Amino acid sequence: MAIVKPSLAKGTRDFSPSEMGKRNFIFNTLKRVFQKYGYSEIQTPSFENLSTLTGKYGDEGDKLIFKILNSGDYLSKVSEQVWSEKNSVKLIPQISEKALRYDLTVPFARYVVMHQNDLAFPFKRFQIQPVWRADRPQRGRYREFYQCDVDVVGSESLLNEAEFVLIYWEALLALGLKDFTIKINNRKILTGIAEIIGKPELIVDMTVAIDKLDKIGLEGVNKELLERGFTMADLEVLRPIILLEGSNDEKLASLKKVLASSEKGMQGIAEIEEVFNYVSAFKVDEKVLERIVEVDITLARGLNYYTGCIFEVKTNEVAMGSIGGGGRYDDLTGMFGLKDLSGVGVSFGADRIYDVLEELDLFPKLTVTSSKILIVNFDKESEAFSIPLLSALRKEGIAVELYPTAAKLKKQMSYADAKRIPFVLLVGTEEMESGELTLKNMESGEQMKVKLSVLIELMRD
Amino acid sequence: MAIVKPSLAKGTRDFSPSEMGKRNFIFNTLKRVFQKYGYSEIQTPSFENLSTLTGKYGDEGDKLIFKILNSGDYLSKVSEQVWSEKNSVKLIPQISEKALRYDLTVPFARYVVMHQNDLAFPFKRFQIQPVWRADRPQRGRYREFYQCDVDVVGSESLLNEAEFVLIYWEALLALGLKDFTIKINNRKILTGIAEIIGKPELIVDMTVAIDKLDKIGLEGVNKELLERGFTMADLEVLRPIILLEGSNDEKLASLKKVLASSEKGMQGIAEIEEVFNYVSAFKVDEKVLERIVEVDITLARGLNYYTGCIFEVKTNEVAMGSIGGGGRYDDLTGMFGLKDLSGVGVSFGADRIYDVLEELDLFPKLTVTSSKILIVNFDKESEAFSIPLLSALRKEGIAVELYPTAAKLKKQMSYADAKRIPFVLLVGTEEMESGELTLKNMESGEQMKVKLSVLIELMRD
Repeated sequence: MAIVKPSLAKGTRDFSPSEMGKRNFIFNTLKRVFQKYGYSEIQTPSFENLSTLTGKYGDEGDKLIFKILNSGDYLSKVSEQVWSEKNSVKLIPQISEKALRYDLTVPFARYVVMHQNDLAFPFKRFQIQPVWRADRPQRGRYREFYQCDVDVVGSESLLNEAEFVLIYWEALLALGLKDFTIKINNRKILTGIAEIIGKPELIVDMTVAIDKLDKIGLEGVNKELLERGFTMADLEVLRPIILLEGSNDEKLASLKKVLASSEKGMQGIAEIEEVFNYVSAFKVDEKVLERIVEVDITLARGLNYYTGCIFEVKTNEVAMGSIGGGGRYDDLTGMFGLKDLSGVGVSFGADRIYDVLEELDLFPKLTVTSSKILIVNFDKESEAFSIPLLSALRKEGIAVELYPTAAKLKKQMSYADAKRIPFVLLVGTEEMESGELTLKNMESGEQMKVKLSVLIELMRD
Repeated sequence: MAIVKPSLAKGTRDFSPSEMGKRNFIFNTLKRVFQKYGYSEIQTPSFENLSTLTGKYGDEGDKLIFKILNSGDYLSKVSEQVWSEKNSVKLIPQISEKALRYDLTVPFARYVVMHQNDLAFPFKRFQIQPVWRADRPQRGRYREFYQCDVDVVGSESLLNEAEFVLIYWEALLALGLKDFTIKINNRKILTGIAEIIGKPELIVDMTVAIDKLDKIGLEGVNKELLERGFTMADLEVLRPIILLEGSNDEKLASLKKVLASSEKGMQGIAEIEEVFNYVSAFKVDEKVLERIVEVDITLARGLNYYTGCIFEVKTNEVAMGSIGGGGRYDDLTGMFGLKDLSGVGVSFGADRIYDVLEELDLFPKLTVTSSKILIVNFDKESEAFSIPLLSALRKEGIAVELYPTAAKLKKQMSYADAKRIPFVLLVGTEEMESGELTLKNMESGEQMKVKLSVLIELMRD
């Protein structure tokens, strides 16, 4: 067998112990919060039937789905007709019937439809699994990455939306973030705006243009709106909406005036108000709420998909795109034939959150789950003395290892250092005689003599 | 978009909350034990370059690797020559350059070689990830399943082998199993046996035949040995080895007599003895050791791979194949050009362990991590009263949810039932007036009146 110089597949990453520790810190924090709010974990398979996935992500998305080659003599089923064309797109369905998960939403919809008779609705689930996309890899963009989704289907209550605001808030605080903004909008407000202008068909053009306010300013937005089919008169109506300012209450009050004639638009405003009322009922301080949650009617992510509230979360501590988002969708499972099941959910961008915590140095020190103690192996005698210590410490749940050979002390110490093992136990002749072991704190360099019972107490916390 | 009646890809499974809870119980138990012994977690990508995987699992294995179709116009690189042949095998390397992980061993070897300059050796890692095989699905055999591997590379000390015996022992006990056998053999003993017969080249034939003793008896084994090129005289030498009986000490004593002239064979015996000595040094009772660990020279798994000790674990409580196995390999990373790195490791068969625990009803009751309390939603008033209770309980880390609408009581109760939420809190007019909430234990049906502070105390443990 020829020796292959190994490399990673393009756009993929290994996770070493220190990275695993950090990623697990994020996942465990999120899980704990999700569970506190009554969400349960599910997992779906890494690959689905190709037919389950195609057509759900648009043409561009379809191209980015990783297809799995059929096993065995996969060409035997290819018709001569198709073969003679040698067309990559046409050949796919004949040689591939499975594909890697592209997101967690479509598999979740498939799951709900297939298990509908076993599920207790409202069904509250979270799911933390990798997804795969054949994107061009670049800094911060990988072909394998994790999504963390939390959704409830089968409930129209806005209490759910309010709890997602709290989930974001509690989770981001628990991760160590201090300054972030949870933006909220409602699809019905956007519909209302397009209605009062009398151009409901231009809703997408309108939101795409408005969404650029931060980047291109009011003039730029106006220019784009004109290009996209709006008139100067429309711009007059839109201006107070685009330039909406003040507190959330002030913004909603202004919107009410503008949208008074649109039933849909007023409904959107009422929904946001109800979400705020629910959040307040959780005894959230009004000022804190005002600081953290922001009505932003330029927010339009996934417009073709969301039907009610829309969320997006940004950190204000680091320049970074959104670290989460979501919203309400009225017809998630319709694609698989189950109608009228309303759902709402949000997701956390684990990779970006990882980068933010790294940049702000917010990962707790001991996320690396290595041993807490390394016992130095001096010779056969100290080894024999140390093995029962391993037993005694592990019995107390303390992670400990004995260096497996009597290598040079320097080598053993740098092993502890590299693995970031916080304590080293030295058991030499003197220690064996007295029973007082030498414990070295690897960070401070301090040494102290301890009996086993004291050592156990010290290590337990 | 046409509506597709959804189905799972063949050989794959969804994991619903109750299954996730059980599987996480297994994984978390294993992780805790691995970490106590100084092992750290890593993860490798789901797909690798095809060249990393091919040729590592034999011809049959290569066929079972799931290949991923190249993205974009993947046929544009196919030569006319290959195209004209329409040969499934020859076409693969031209249209696929990535493949799904087939096991955790080869990616681990790739990982060690690529990260060799950053790793502290001995490198102790565990890895719990799914693998994929294009096997024919059948009962208990899936195309996507988890492997749980724990290995150390860069240390020849038999202390590692001894600790794997303890890891198996501690982990299986922690999972609730009581009666299991950790079988141990050593490749060098098998080599020694083939040597004393003078037929080292027939070692594989010999072990394949001996391995069938349980199934076909001594006569069957003898017949097969004769067919595979052994003589009647060889059978005479082999008989006491095949029929080895008694305690581990007695078996090793018998083997020493038979293998006295084989240096290799004696080395294998000495290694097993040293492993036993190490295990005893951990203050393991001799009788317990004798009951749990069994020298079994018919054990030959992965013979082309293992070079020293070989392990296999069986439960004696349920009829089931092995639930774990492993051994020492002297040249894991050689396939990627890094020579002379000795390693030893074991794996746990998570799917089989799951089935065993299910059959023996050993899963702890509360592996399903749903809410601990459902608050019944009677009407807007009780909802408003209940929301601050949610805050108060969650602040104490208690998982709680409020039914999101004032649905019929029966519906809310069966929701709690289906989600196996152990307690339901009823907050009606009387409760709101008195502040004494009605707590119902869903298992016993018992109801009691509690103040919030008492409820928190009750739910905390």
